Amino acid sequence: MRERENGYVLALHGGAEEPPKGQEEEAHAGLQAALRAGRAVLEGGGSAVEAVTAAVSALEDCHVFNSGHGAAFFADGSQAMDASIMDGRNHSAGAVANIFGPRNPVQAARLVMEKSDHVLMVGEGALAFCREHGIAMADRDYFFTEKKWRALQQTLAEKGQEPSALPRFRDTVGAVARDRQGNLAAATSTGGLTASLPGRVSDTACIGSGTFADNAVCAVTATGDGEVFMRWAAAHAVAARMQFAGQSAEQAGREVIFDLIGPGGGTGGLVVLAPDGTVAMPFNAEGMLRGYVREGGLLHTALADEPYRKTEA
Amino acid sequence: MRERENGYVLALHGGAEEPPKGQEEEAHAGLQAALRAGRAVLEGGGSAVEAVTAAVSALEDCHVFNSGHGAAFFADGSQAMDASIMDGRNHSAGAVANIFGPRNPVQAARLVMEKSDHVLMVGEGALAFCREHGIAMADRDYFFTEKKWRALQQTLAEKGQEPSALPRFRDTVGAVARDRQGNLAAATSTGGLTASLPGRVSDTACIGSGTFADNAVCAVTATGDGEVFMRWAAAHAVAARMQFAGQSAEQAGREVIFDLIGPGGGTGGLVVLAPDGTVAMPFNAEGMLRGYVREGGLLHTALADEPYRKTEA
Repeated sequence: MRERENGYVLALHGGAEEPPKGQEEEAHAGLQAALRAGRAVLEGGGSAVEAVTAAVSALEDCHVFNSGHGAAFFADGSQAMDASIMDGRNHSAGAVANIFGPRNPVQAARLVMEKSDHVLMVGEGALAFCREHGIAMADRDYFFTEKKWRALQQTLAEKGQEPSALPRFRDTVGAVARDRQGNLAAATSTGGLTASLPGRVSDTACIGSGTFADNAVCAVTATGDGEVFMRWAAAHAVAARMQFAGQSAEQAGREVIFDLIGPGGGTGGLVVLAPDGTVAMPFNAEGMLRGYVREGGLLHTALADEPYRKTEA
Repeated sequence: MRERENGYVLALHGGAEEPPKGQEEEAHAGLQAALRAGRAVLEGGGSAVEAVTAAVSALEDCHVFNSGHGAAFFADGSQAMDASIMDGRNHSAGAVANIFGPRNPVQAARLVMEKSDHVLMVGEGALAFCREHGIAMADRDYFFTEKKWRALQQTLAEKGQEPSALPRFRDTVGAVARDRQGNLAAATSTGGLTASLPGRVSDTACIGSGTFADNAVCAVTATGDGEVFMRWAAAHAVAARMQFAGQSAEQAGREVIFDLIGPGGGTGGLVVLAPDGTVAMPFNAEGMLRGYVREGGLLHTALADEPYRKTEA
C-alpha cells in the first residue's frame, strides 16, 4: 500500500472481528464516514492529531462499532469506555479509562493530553476533569444499543460454556494519520469487553499497548483481546521492531500479531503507518473492519480478507 | 554488578529522589528489610514472582517510601495507589490503579494477575474484586503519614510558583528478581504524585511503562515522573534495546534515562535485570534509594551516587 512519500494518509479500523452479519453495508458506510471526517481535516491542512480525533469521533458515533454509541456492557449491566491519543511530534499522549458520560471518549483523551499534566485519568476524577472543561456529555439512552445489550444477556446466560460460544464484543476503533507536514498521530477508543468485571481497563487506555506514535518510527492502533495486547506492549512492540530490527510496517505488524499475540492466546489486529506513508493492517481474526485514504486517492474499505471496496474521493 | 550466572538475584528501588534528610538510616533499614523479605523467598526456593511480591510488600509497609503506608495525597486530600506485577515466564501481568484500601497494593495487582481474566483494574471495580478475594485491607489512619500530608499542604500553598520549588512526592517502589530456575519477574507500587488530580493513573499501573518482564530479555521496574515514562513506554523501551539492538542492561537503561526520559523533561530511574543476572540501576535524579542481593552475597544498599553500604547476609 505504499504509493508516494508526500501527501497525507489516514488509515483506520472498526475492530477485528467477523464482519457483522446483515450490517455489512452499515459497516462500510461507517468506515467511509470516518475516512471522510479525517480526510476533511487533512485536506484543510489540519494536523494528524486533529485528523485521528475526527476519524475516531465518527467511528464512536456509529452504532456498528464497539465504542461511544454502541459500547459493550460490563457484567453488572453498566458501560464504561476507554480511549487514548498520541502525538508523534513530541510523544504527548492522553488517555481516559472507565468513564461513562463523554459523548466522544477520544475527545476526553485529547483533553487530558492538552489540558492536564497527566497521561491517563480514570473514573470519577476523569469525569470531573471533563466536566470542568465543558466536554460534550451524553446519557444512558444515547449509549444504549439493543445489539450490545443482547450480547451481555446471552453471555451471562451461557456462563460456564466454552468461551468460544460467547458472542462477546471486545473490539475497538482506531485511526492513524500522517499530515502534510509529515507528522504522525494515533488514536484508539473502545466500549470494552462484554461481561467483563467492572473496573477493567483495556489496552486501549494504555500508551504503548493499544496506541503509539513517534514521527521517526510509526503510528499504531490496536484492536482485539486487550489483555494479550497489554502483556506484550503490542503497539510499542511494533515500534521497537521498526526502530531497532529494521523491519517494515508489514513485517513488524505481522510479527507482533502472528508471533506474539496469536501464540499468547489473542486474536485481533493492528493498523501501522510508517513515516514514509506505508500502511499495514495485519489481523488474525476472521475479519477486520478497516479502511484507508491517501491524498488525491479513493476511499478504500474492507471487512474481511477480500479486495478493498473503492469509493469516490 | 555481574557476578555469576547461577543463583538468585534480587534488586529493588525505593524511588528516585534526593535521599530523605534525617531519614537516611531509616531508608537503608527499609531497603534492607525488603531485600531480606525477598531473599527469604528465593532462599526457600520460591519463585521470582513471589520474591518481588514479598520485597515490594515490605517497601509498601515502610513509611519512608511513597507507596502503601506513606502514600502521597491528591490535590483534594484523598489518597490512591497504583501497582503492577509481571511474570517473565509467560508475560502474565496484573495491575491496579486508583485504589484505596488494600494494605499492600502489589498483592492486589498479583490477585488481578492470578484470579481474573484482566490485566488492569481500577477504582471501585478493583476494590470489589479485592474484597471478594479477601485481600487484607487497611484504613485511613494506617495510610496517613504526617510527612506526605505536609507535602500536600505546602504544594497547595505554593501553587503558582516554580514547579521546582515544590516538595512533591512522585516516587515509587519496585523490585526485580531472578529465581534459581532462571525465571524473571518485576513489580512496582506507588502512592502517586502529591497534589495531582484525582483519577490520575501513573506509569506504575501500565505494563510496558513502569513494569516489564520477559525471561528471555529482562525485568524492569521504573520510578520518576510517571507521565514521561508513559509517553516513552520506558520499561518496554529498555527491553526493546536489549532484544533488538544488542544492548546490555546498563546500556539500555542509561539510554532510556538519559536519551529519552531526561530530554523528555523527566527525572527518575530504572532497575534492570538481565537474564544472566546483570543488574543496572541508572538514574538522573539527585539520588535513587536502591539495593540488591545475590545468592550467598551481602545486602547492598545506596541512596545516592555513592559506594554501596554492605550489610551482613
